[in-house]
Parts: sequence; C-alpha cells; structure tokens
Amino acid sequence: MRVSPVRVAVVQFEPRVGVENLESNAAEVERRLAAAADSGANLIVLPELATTGYVFESREEAYAHAEAVPNGRTVESFATIAAERRVYIVGCVVERDGEKLFDTAVLVGPEGYIGRYRKTHLWNTEKLWFTPGDEGFSVFDTRIGRIGLLVCWDIWFPETARIVAQMGADIICVPTGWVWTPPPLYDESGVCMAAYLTMTAAHSNNVFIATADRIGQERGAGFMGNSLIAGTNGWPIDRIAGPDEDTIIYADIDLTSARTAPIWNQLNDLHRDRRTDLYDQMLGYTGSVPLPR
Amino acid sequence: MRVSPVRVAVVQFEPRVGVENLESNAAEVERRLAAAADSGANLIVLPELATTGYVFESREEAYAHAEAVPNGRTVESFATIAAERRVYIVGCVVERDGEKLFDTAVLVGPEGYIGRYRKTHLWNTEKLWFTPGDEGFSVFDTRIGRIGLLVCWDIWFPETARIVAQMGADIICVPTGWVWTPPPLYDESGVCMAAYLTMTAAHSNNVFIATADRIGQERGAGFMGNSLIAGTNGWPIDRIAGPDEDTIIYADIDLTSARTAPIWNQLNDLHRDRRTDLYDQMLGYTGSVPLPR
Repeated sequence: MRVSPVRVAVVQFEPRVGVENLESNAAEVERRLAAAADSGANLIVLPELATTGYVFESREEAYAHAEAVPNGRTVESFATIAAERRVYIVGCVVERDGEKLFDTAVLVGPEGYIGRYRKTHLWNTEKLWFTPGDEGFSVFDTRIGRIGLLVCWDIWFPETARIVAQMGADIICVPTGWVWTPPPLYDESGVCMAAYLTMTAAHSNNVFIATADRIGQERGAGFMGNSLIAGTNGWPIDRIAGPDEDTIIYADIDLTSARTAPIWNQLNDLHRDRRTDLYDQMLGYTGSVPLPR
Repeated sequence: MRVSPVRVAVVQFEPRVGVENLESNAAEVERRLAAAADSGANLIVLPELATTGYVFESREEAYAHAEAVPNGRTVESFATIAAERRVYIVGCVVERDGEKLFDTAVLVGPEGYIGRYRKTHLWNTEKLWFTPGDEGFSVFDTRIGRIGLLVCWDIWFPETARIVAQMGADIICVPTGWVWTPPPLYDESGVCMAAYLTMTAAHSNNVFIATADRIGQERGAGFMGNSLIAGTNGWPIDRIAGPDEDTIIYADIDLTSARTAPIWNQLNDLHRDRRTDLYDQMLGYTGSVPLPR
C-alpha cells in the first residue's frame, strides 16, 4: 500500500430509499467500491446514506433503515471489502444507539473499523429523527494520513472544516446529499454554492476535501451531484462532477502537502495568522443583537 | 435618502503608489465617488488604500503616506463629499496613531465620520509596517442599515465574516487589494478564489458583502480585480468585475433581507443552527497537533 501520495475516489450515484432497496443499494455500492479499487484508489468516499436512501417519511421508517455502528451489516461489509482490497472507505449510515438515531460517517480500512463521526449539524427533517452528533469532531490517524470526517450540511458552517483542519486532518472526507435549495442552483459553469463552500473551506484551511454527493430525485427532493476533490489551494483536482452523472472522480494526492503552509510568501501562514485573541466574540454567541465592543 | 432598499456601489480602479501621486489618486477617487453618487448610490466602497497605493518599500515610505483618523486629509475629504452628496462612503487609509501605523477602513456618512476598523489580519510585508488591528471588529448602525467592515486578507479567515455577521451586520464592506498568489489565479469563468471566499462568506452568514478591489500592477505586484457585491444567497448581484476593468459595480439591495433566515425550510437557520457547544475546540488553538477528543 502506498503511504503518500494516495489515490482518492469520490463515488456519485443514485441510491433508492425504502427497506426493499437496502440489498440493491448495497450491491450498487459494492460494485462501485470494487471499480474504484480496481482503478487503484486507496481512499474511497461514498455519498451520505448511500445504502439506505435519504428522504425518510417518518422516524419509524428511519429506524427500519438503521443499524449499530460498528457492528451493523453495512459497516461490517465495508470493513470486509477494505480488508480484501486494502483500501480505506468512508461511508455513512443510519446509526441506531439505544433509542437514538444518528446520521453517522464511518471510516474503515485494511485494519478494520477505525472510527465514526456523528453529523453535528442536521438539515431540515433530519431533525425529526436524528439526534445531533454528540461526540464532537473526528480526525483519525491512518497509514495513509490523517483523515477527518464531516457530513453534508456541516460544510455550511465554516467552523467545522476549521476545527477538523486544526485537529490535524490532511484530508476531510464528506459524505453528502446536497438537496435543491432556492435557485439559482448552479452558476453558468454548472457549479453549485455547496461546491464553492467546499473549495473555499479547503483553500482557507490548506486541507484536501473529498466530497461524494448523490444524484437523482427522491420523494420530491432533488440532489445536486457536483462531487469533487478540492486541493489544498481550493481548486478542484480533476473536475467537478455534473449534476446528474453516475460517476467516480479520482485525484492523486500527496497528503503530506497539507502539512506545510501554502508557499505564498515568507510572512503568512493561514493557521498561524489566526487572530485567536479576537475570536472569543464567536463563542457561545447565538443572537442577532450586536455584541458589545 | 432611501432607508432600504439602497444602491450599493463598489469602485474598481488603479491607484498609484508614491507621495507624488497622493493628489492625483485623491482626484481619481473623488471623480468616481461623484460618478457613483450621480448614479444614485447610497453606499460606496473604495479599494484598500485607494488614495495612497499599496506596495510600500519601507516603513518610512508607509509613514509618508499616513494620516490621522478621523482628522486626516483623506477622511475629512470623504466626510465632506458624504455630507454634500448624502451618501455613505467606506474608504481605507494608512492610519498613523503615535508611532504605530494601521491599515484602516473608515465609514463616513451624511452625518460625518462614523467609525473605523483597523485590519486585523495583515498580508505579507504589511506586517513590516502596520500594527495588527487592536480594536476588534466593527459594525456600525446607520440610517441605511448596519454596516460591518473588513479589509482584504481578513476574508481568508472565515471567523471574520462570521463575527461581523453575528454582531448584526446587514452588509459587510471590504476595501481590498487582492494580489497575485500562486496560480491558478482565475478559473475558466475568470473568477479568483478570493471572489469565491467572498461569495461563500455571504452565503454561509446570510449577509451582503460588497468588496471593492483594485487593478493594475505596482512594483512587481499584480492585482486581481473581481470586485463584486454578493447577495445573502452568496451569488453575485449584477456581475463580478473583470481582472483589469476600470469600473463601478452597482447593486440595489434590501438590507433588511439580511435579518431574516434564508427561506429554505421550516427547521433550519444558519445562525441558530451553529453548534456553539462544540466550537470551543476552535478558540485559542494555534498548533497543528491533533486536539484531544
């Protein structure tokens, strides 16, 4: 196994919601994991809830799609594939823990289950069945580098990528299900705002970000595609996937390059230059009334 | 004077460095302020250090371009114009305060001098002559709305727009001198990463951002143009200025729309949804070693 550079793959396809589709979704995912591994990928990122679909109609239906982490069917299957193919996989499942459900990203590798991240910022009706992540943010040391995890709507909050980058992540992997929001959905280049959020988060934190989004429509929700792997300079490596493409995007990355400051000049470093002496205004403040100066 | 909506203007042109050019720069600025006012602008934003030029060769030269704030020549001139034309103006000057120099944005209006913001994140050789801003962040209540100020490199730090938005800004005005950094400078649409940083900061904070950049070359530094006014949805209003255009971009804005949550769904609000319970990992942390979980 190469340590660095590594080949990263983000998988974009259309899962189907409904327990009757769990098996076929799993088969579709496994087929794409095999294809990515065949293409030399070392780290493969899947969309959010790729084996279950996303738009549940009730808390009861979400429960029916749930499993334990790490000892559930999907994560065990990922771990088996990761061991067989000597790859790292970032997936995302409906996690059940007692009575609670979480929207949970998982990282597995050749060595087995590595860790999870429970989505901390919940989008729309997710709030009706999921519990907001209660374990903080996650970065895992692996043989290929330090891998951070976020999920979808998290990227709208610049705090998330900042924290994960500061925790030492070389690459942030983001299973995603970007849904249509008020237009314009895309600019003239066919790129959505969420892709730009991804690019600017990579740029301003000097970190790689690999985002796997889904496509298609599900119970009235449309998904945006635009999966991408952003370099530490923010620009997409290879390309941004189209809105409807069933595809896999690859990037060959030297993860260690996320550990050096961008070579812009001798006086600046994006992390060192933070004015943490002033940022206490950010913490714990949730209102809209001007803060005292 | 209209209260809201207002017409915002960002001025893009090429100042010239050197004390011999102070007068001609001032005249160029005044000509554009008059043009914007003639076009009905209520709030006009100028580039960073528009009356002095930017690339100083020494601390001594920076001193020679400096003045007191608010009782210096440039700010007094802005205030006179603002009173005569009944407009708000955001400018940016080399401020001298005792032995210290600051890269200072100022806000003046029909009522006179309103306030200043001393740039908190210094770029490259600015560190050799300017003192980092020591007065925190600034949002000012005016008759047309709440106006926040940032300067140029600040926007690379997502904390800055976050704080200013949380302080209640309806619009953040950003005098800017974006210099060439390692390529790619622009994408295929002719848009630079800094413009995307501006757009995503507007989007994720539900705030307007009006950024006036300069153009041209100065002592080996090239400037990017790309001045823009981003809507609360992040997308540019009107258009993003070209890299070399001498121009003014306008947008008619209802500033009060920054005070409502984006109408995406009934369950999300970009500010309310912040996980401030988890963000303490951000504060005061400046190293690169993983934080404890």
